[in-house]
Amino acid sequence: MSGRRVEREVFMVSPKYHVFVCASCRINGTQKGFCHSKGSVALIQKFMEEIDDNDLTGEVMVTNTGCFGICDKGPVVVIYPEGTWYGNVTEDDVETIVEQHLIGGEKVKDLVI
Amino acid sequence: MSGRRVEREVFMVSPKYHVFVCASCRINGTQKGFCHSKGSVALIQKFMEEIDDNDLTGEVMVTNTGCFGICDKGPVVVIYPEGTWYGNVTEDDVETIVEQHLIGGEKVKDLVI
Repeated sequence: MSGRRVEREVFMVSPKYHVFVCASCRINGTQKGFCHSKGSVALIQKFMEEIDDNDLTGEVMVTNTGCFGICDKGPVVVIYPEGTWYGNVTEDDVETIVEQHLIGGEKVKDLVI
Repeated sequence: MSGRRVEREVFMVSPKYHVFVCASCRINGTQKGFCHSKGSVALIQKFMEEIDDNDLTGEVMVTNTGCFGICDKGPVVVIYPEGTWYGNVTEDDVETIVEQHLIGGEKVKDLVI
């Protein structure tokens, strides 16, 4: 529609970081599961806020997903292209991940699974 | 529970290829959108069948996602760690992507967006 939208589309096909957050989406349309019950929807919103606050909207994309198969370590967040897997992520951890990993380029070792 | 499950969990945290397929999952729990209406759930099932048939279950992980924001090019499939974006993907294309990209290591250029 707007120029901004077109720009975003063109650019975001190759984000610098792509953050995937399990929201326990099932392909039959229901949304049930450990990550969802542990507040992963709030995590997604927190990521979006932090990315916006830090002017990273042109570099970082956030996508909600279905189950990654390691529910006992949920909520699970996976960041590509590195393929870093974080587990038991809380809302407070989101700030750390944004500052240390997405801005600083260093993994948050304590959260890696 | 079983040894197989544990082995899968340990191994799949670092899959060689991670295939993300938009199934239009929204974080409010509904599943509506262009990719879903264009048969993306069947695509996910087709990927899982092909991966199983080609003995790639130890190397390739498939995850359903929410919207990638480029609905007019859907169904959208994204493969990491390369960050290859495929658009307008059909069930027939899944075989090509599995053979050429996931087995052969070459992008399917005609589908890249």
